[in-house]
Amino acid sequence: MSEPLKIAIAGLGTVGAGTVKLLSEQADLLALRAGRALEITAVSARGRGRDRGVDLGGFEWYDDPVAMARDSGADVVVELIGGSDGAARAVCEAGFAARRHVVTANKALLAIHGTELARQAEAAGVTLGWEAAVAAGIPVIRSLREGLAGNRIGRLHGILNGTCNYILTNMRTTGRDFDEVLAEAQSLGYAEADPGFDVDGVDAAHKLALLSAVAFGAQVDFAGVHTEGIRNIAPMDIEFAGELGYRIKLLGIAERNPDGIHQRVHPAMVPEDAPIAAVEGVFNGIVTEGDFAGVTMLEGRGAGAGPTASAVAGDLVDIARGHATPTFGVPADALEAIPSLPMDRHVGAYYVRLMVIDEPGVLADIAAILRDAEISLESVLQRSRAPGDVVPVVLTLHETGEAAMRRALDAIGQIEAVREPPHMIRIERG
Amino acid sequence: MSEPLKIAIAGLGTVGAGTVKLLSEQADLLALRAGRALEITAVSARGRGRDRGVDLGGFEWYDDPVAMARDSGADVVVELIGGSDGAARAVCEAGFAARRHVVTANKALLAIHGTELARQAEAAGVTLGWEAAVAAGIPVIRSLREGLAGNRIGRLHGILNGTCNYILTNMRTTGRDFDEVLAEAQSLGYAEADPGFDVDGVDAAHKLALLSAVAFGAQVDFAGVHTEGIRNIAPMDIEFAGELGYRIKLLGIAERNPDGIHQRVHPAMVPEDAPIAAVEGVFNGIVTEGDFAGVTMLEGRGAGAGPTASAVAGDLVDIARGHATPTFGVPADALEAIPSLPMDRHVGAYYVRLMVIDEPGVLADIAAILRDAEISLESVLQRSRAPGDVVPVVLTLHETGEAAMRRALDAIGQIEAVREPPHMIRIERG
Repeated sequence: MSEPLKIAIAGLGTVGAGTVKLLSEQADLLALRAGRALEITAVSARGRGRDRGVDLGGFEWYDDPVAMARDSGADVVVELIGGSDGAARAVCEAGFAARRHVVTANKALLAIHGTELARQAEAAGVTLGWEAAVAAGIPVIRSLREGLAGNRIGRLHGILNGTCNYILTNMRTTGRDFDEVLAEAQSLGYAEADPGFDVDGVDAAHKLALLSAVAFGAQVDFAGVHTEGIRNIAPMDIEFAGELGYRIKLLGIAERNPDGIHQRVHPAMVPEDAPIAAVEGVFNGIVTEGDFAGVTMLEGRGAGAGPTASAVAGDLVDIARGHATPTFGVPADALEAIPSLPMDRHVGAYYVRLMVIDEPGVLADIAAILRDAEISLESVLQRSRAPGDVVPVVLTLHETGEAAMRRALDAIGQIEAVREPPHMIRIERG
Repeated sequence: MSEPLKIAIAGLGTVGAGTVKLLSEQADLLALRAGRALEITAVSARGRGRDRGVDLGGFEWYDDPVAMARDSGADVVVELIGGSDGAARAVCEAGFAARRHVVTANKALLAIHGTELARQAEAAGVTLGWEAAVAAGIPVIRSLREGLAGNRIGRLHGILNGTCNYILTNMRTTGRDFDEVLAEAQSLGYAEADPGFDVDGVDAAHKLALLSAVAFGAQVDFAGVHTEGIRNIAPMDIEFAGELGYRIKLLGIAERNPDGIHQRVHPAMVPEDAPIAAVEGVFNGIVTEGDFAGVTMLEGRGAGAGPTASAVAGDLVDIARGHATPTFGVPADALEAIPSLPMDRHVGAYYVRLMVIDEPGVLADIAAILRDAEISLESVLQRSRAPGDVVPVVLTLHETGEAAMRRALDAIGQIEAVREPPHMIRIERG
């Protein structure tokens, strides 16, 4: 058996401690599967004395993770600090400069600097492993990049944020509103104290940008992802979705078309019997459409110490075996600069909920605006209470352009009897 | 860029022709992803003149696939002949003898000779790639063997045969019986003229034996798989399953326990909201339980030219990159000879349907037998028609041992008023 693979770990939060735990508990298994021992030699974190529930006694300690990446003599630096710049980025760059492999769980870093880091890894002749950065416990990067290497991917979509999926699932099963369920998710540790990163769709957008790059062989373009979150989803929308045969999910969707790539993260109604609709609670799921393999779905735990450590370990085993795959599946210079298309260019079906005063003629005004915009109505759902009440009117609209839809919604919002800005949710085929 | 990877293909049926098509249509993509061209140099099949819808003009033709494996000068031999012995086995062995890599879609061959072939590949210092042998378009072998390499797998279960899943799904949605739906599946090309291999569970058992080997690092033990098919599933059982909140699926289940491995393929009732229950039609799905990653499910097309060719291409790209992983994830000599446990040792919940004459005292007799066997009743479902009619009585039983259950069913079957042998379906947690 060859020399042990020497590993330096930067960052000992939940995931870092979980990785130390995995590498220690599964040492025999990993040695067998990797053909050599996987051995942590150095660690770095803030707060040396802190109890992290794992024994760090045998490892060299560095207060400065960049110094560790530069000087420690490890074969691989595992970056688990987080954040799109600062120490995390410096650690990766120092690792490459010293010709060490880097494994990271950092989606924010890669979403913004991924193409550049891929170039650095390649120039140094080392591997940048990042399975842990997207959907943690689900080996989706490996599946896309290697398992489906023989396919052109036309489209992929997925539930990429467990916090949002937990909230939406619970809103549906309990009928409670967003704020209440969010508070519960926070108390259970499924949501951060500052939840914006998750519930505003940013985290999902990071992951989508990375999946797009691998699927389409494109440079990472996080700035090109249209991003909306789930704060505006009302219990009423979830109820109507059910009546119409849909579930509401925060989806990340990437589609290749001749002009470029559509990348978008937003709440979407998907048919109840679509495989992705069955991905519930904190689980993530990713559906890919390959020209030979057809539709493939992967589902599992997208966050947490165990699943993330599992992904890190998979990358370490690859490196220990000497397997090198370009970061995004093809050499960095071959990654195409494919334009991301603006949301205005989207064409799709829509759900619209209007809160209107129940009085004669309102529906006629709405219908006239849609007709003038050449938007074709699929269904209308209106429940009268009493004349003068504000009631929901739910419309579903056949495939139409986003730009025309937005203009029509602006016009509808200006009707006197329409009492709230229109609530719009896109309908996807799942 | 390095030299092209030279590929010889043995067998040009649907999958072989699909593989030729993929390698031709995706040549540029594959070269980019593999770092070198993937080039077919030789082919072999029966019936040289036959039109297969692909251009074979540029390839050296061999009438004898074994001669091709031995003499062609290819780097890789792709075995797509099929069958557990004969030409397929001879081609693989000739390939190894000539130190060529082998890629195969042949589950029957590997289920029976897998451990031995893994030894031969290892001795020759080459790779045996077999992603295509299990669940075709789903990169499940790669996921288990590499993506989840840091996990001990405790249990896996899956829908491993698309024909059976198509039949069961259609029986449920249409209410028709097995024979009728099988005939339809045959006319659509989803089932073979001789359907036994699929509907009796043999094909699923082959795949389960292979998944077990990878998941548990064990020698392949196809003979140790308890195998039952779906011929005895009646529309009535599917209806009762629905009433009880279950769906009936043909599952392959492998569980590691301290004494050995339970490997079994049989119809099972799974909760309607279990992820595996949502895998419908010709789709396959595999659920793995890892100690760090948690539950992961992979779903996709488990058969067909495109999905199978996709899996073959993934293996070829690995070989082109020089990535070598032991056949079952660990060196062949490290594969443990873990005993497969007999079905008698199974403990689980059960559904039992009895066809009984509706007369006083029958249920008391049945209940007495169960009580004497210490089997605890969870629910009874009985719909009376008229005294003297034969009516179904459905029992669900709490966790109990298979051996005790079998004895009780034998005794129940001997009650005068019980008019058919008891229909038993195991209940699984999904």
